[in-house]
Order: sequence, then structure tokens, then C-alpha cells
Amino acid sequence: MSSKNSQDIPPDHPRYESLKVRARVVDAYKAGILADSGLIAHGRGEAFDYLAGEKTSPAAEKAIETAAATLLLAENPVISVNGNTAALVPGEVVSLAHTLNAKIEINLFYRTPERVSAIEKVLKDAGAREVLGTEENPEHIEGLASPRSRASKEGVYKADVMLVPLEDGDRAEALISNGKKVITVDLNPLSRTAKTATITIVDNLVRAIPLLTGEVERLRKMDKSTLQHIVHDFDNHSNLQDSLRVMLESLHE
Amino acid sequence: MSSKNSQDIPPDHPRYESLKVRARVVDAYKAGILADSGLIAHGRGEAFDYLAGEKTSPAAEKAIETAAATLLLAENPVISVNGNTAALVPGEVVSLAHTLNAKIEINLFYRTPERVSAIEKVLKDAGAREVLGTEENPEHIEGLASPRSRASKEGVYKADVMLVPLEDGDRAEALISNGKKVITVDLNPLSRTAKTATITIVDNLVRAIPLLTGEVERLRKMDKSTLQHIVHDFDNHSNLQDSLRVMLESLHE
Repeated sequence: MSSKNSQDIPPDHPRYESLKVRARVVDAYKAGILADSGLIAHGRGEAFDYLAGEKTSPAAEKAIETAAATLLLAENPVISVNGNTAALVPGEVVSLAHTLNAKIEINLFYRTPERVSAIEKVLKDAGAREVLGTEENPEHIEGLASPRSRASKEGVYKADVMLVPLEDGDRAEALISNGKKVITVDLNPLSRTAKTATITIVDNLVRAIPLLTGEVERLRKMDKSTLQHIVHDFDNHSNLQDSLRVMLESLHE
Repeated sequence: MSSKNSQDIPPDHPRYESLKVRARVVDAYKAGILADSGLIAHGRGEAFDYLAGEKTSPAAEKAIETAAATLLLAENPVISVNGNTAALVPGEVVSLAHTLNAKIEINLFYRTPERVSAIEKVLKDAGAREVLGTEENPEHIEGLASPRSRASKEGVYKADVMLVPLEDGDRAEALISNGKKVITVDLNPLSRTAKTATITIVDNLVRAIPLLTGEVERLRKMDKSTLQHIVHDFDNHSNLQDSLRVMLESLHE
């Protein structure tokens, strides 16, 4: 029943990186970090990344720059982590959170105490000092069914800017309705989340998060008005169109 | 760790059919029919089906008609069944095989005795009288590593036309090199399998197999030269372009 281990994939395979990431996702599933639907969601992402040429587009770079500026301007930035994010980029999320002095909060669709613990452990092993979202009595975000509505008082509940990679449309909409700026990372430029978010980075999380941390490092030297200009100049709808264009061109080749 | 059961999905959900199929795939995974990579592969299919508007395109209908004619003209038609096919359409495959008087043969990438037995059982429960591919000492197809190379003497080994839904590129190429006509069902019109096959049906297996059985019923009344005309008029490359065009249009909307 086993898939290839990452060691078994020859480094000269044309899709080496993608297959290595896939093996990591399967391992995370076996470790109880991912729900069944997380494996399927990963496959959907693979298909869109394939269309994106498995590389970060100029449109995604622009969205990443804007996301970095938005996060630097935030008063209470929070990174929301689900199973797929914990499986793919635990260390990268922790290092972004440190760079931004942002909170990390676990939020799961298929929430069980075991999955919450497994994800908390992955994040702490990756160096997280604090992981929110494990409380007994959290606050709640209006317009969502539990357990998606959970919001830690010091985290999501008071966040003004949230990074919610690989989010579903219902939660993205509810967070926006509750007045938060939502930055997402989603390889499907047509998804409800992609269309709803304030800033959508159409890129593979594995590439996008390290690039985002790099942009935060670069832009932190800029003054506030420069950051505000970057944010002001960004239009999510037209950025999504640019991402689509890359996929259209790959279909035409 | 569980996903929604099919009973939990409200019938008025805009993606009801797709979610119901997903739940069936997760159940098959738990029953040992699917490998881990089969769940991920299903997700990739979902993404392409989403782009195809989750419906059978005129290009797919044309490919299905040609596949039916080709199968009717075959001397030894064989349907090759892997885990995803057994998970999605066991009854539909058995009924197509009966209609065509075709053999059914199991062929797995991640082959274990347990998976072979589980799939054999699913097919027999669905009414299959004979399931090949379980032999101790099969023949082999040249140019493939075992266990993909396995070929039952009365099945794949002597087949002139094969239906191999959801196949990988290596096996599709090897079957073609060994002189067989290959009909595949693959939602990714850019895949190596899609480009290699004699006839590629770019459609969801759940929709395509019943339509194929219907076409076989309809065309079986035609004379041989009419069937040969249908086959002669078909161009797989331009049919793939037509399937791509549907996806391009969905991206443009």
C-alpha cells in the first residue's frame, strides 16, 4: 500500500521536486497530520502546479511582495495552520512567524484532539515558541460552523491581517466579513478562496513561504509610506488574471 | 481523520457528484483497494475535471464513439483495471466487459497480494465471471519493469485492443510498442499517456464508462465498414486540442 519514499526518487527525474513533496505529504498522512481529504487536496494542487510549470510566476512574485508589505503593516498578524500546511512547510512557517513576530494558530476542518496534538508537535519541533488554537474555550468567528469558527483570543480573534494558506472558501469569506485582511496561498486561481481573499498568492506553498520570508526581510527596511504604496498598487482580481494567463499559455504549448 | 461520508453531503451542494465520488474513493482507500498515490491521483483528476466543467465535452463524446467502434472491431479486447478504476466504476467495467465479451485483467503499480485480492473481490462482487492478472507465472510485456510488465496469456498478452483507464505513461508507451491499440481515459489532456494512446477519452471515468457501454450497444448494429470509417476519421492529437480548448474557455470565464 506504500508509495515511493523520497529516497527512492532519482534526482534526475523531471518532476523530482514534486515527487519528493508528494512523498512528504504521504508520510504526514501516516503520522496523523493530514486528513484523507488532505491527500486529495494535495493532488488537486499538483495538477494546478503542473499547469503553472511548477514555478513561481511574476504574478505570484508581485502578490508575495504585496503580502509581505501587508504583513509588515499589520498590528496583529496571525498565520493560520492546517494539516497540509503543517505537512509541507512547518519550519518555513515558524521562521516566517519569527521574522514577523506573528502568532501561529492551528485551525482544522476535520478537527480531532490527536490531529491538533500531532500538528502542535510538528510546529514545536520546528522551533515554534507558542502555538495557539489548542485552547479549551476559544472565541468564535461569526458565520462559520464549529470547529472552523474557533479563534484564539490572542490570535485569530484579534488579528487584523491573517495568512491562511490552503484555506476553504467558507472560512476565507467569514474572515473577510469579520473585517480581517486575508492573504492566502492557493494554486487554483478560480477557487472561491482565491477570489475572496484580499491577496491571493497563486503558487506552491513550498516555494511561496520562503520567498515571502525573504520579501519581509527586504521590505522591513522601507518606510511605512513605501509599503502603503505597494499595497495600494495591488489589484487581486487582475493579479489572478495574470496567474491564469500563465496556465493558459502552458495549455497552448 | 475521516472525511465526509457520502450520506453527509447535501444533494443540493453545487459539487454534489464530485464530493460523492470523492467519498467513495476514500472508502476504497480504507478497504485496501487504492494505494496512497491513488488518493493523490484522484485529486489531480478532480482539478482537471473542474476545468472541464465536470461534464463530458463533445470532444470526449467523439473519442468515446471511436473507442466503441475500435473495441467492436477488436479480436481480443481487454480491459485493464487498476486500483482507481476498481474504486470508481467496478460495476460499469463489468457491464462493459459483458457487452463486449472482453476480458478483465488487474494490473497494479504498487502490487501486493492483498490489493490484488481486494480488487478481484470488488470485481467479482460486481458480477465479473473471470478476472485475469492474478496468475503466479504470467507472460510479460517488453520494456516495462515488473510488476507492470505482467500480462496474462489469455488477456493482455494476446490483446489487440486494450482499454487502460488512468494509466501511467510508461505502460501506455510499452503497450503501444508491443503493437497494441491503446484506449485510455485520462482527464489531463497534457499527460504522456494522453499523448501516447491511440484514443484518449478526456473525461471522468464515472461518466465515460457508462457512455462507452451505451455507444457499444448503439454501434454493434452497424456493419464493419461503418465502424472502420469512424475509426479512420478520428485524429487523437486534434481531439486532445479540442479537449484543451474546453478547459481554456473555462479558465477565461
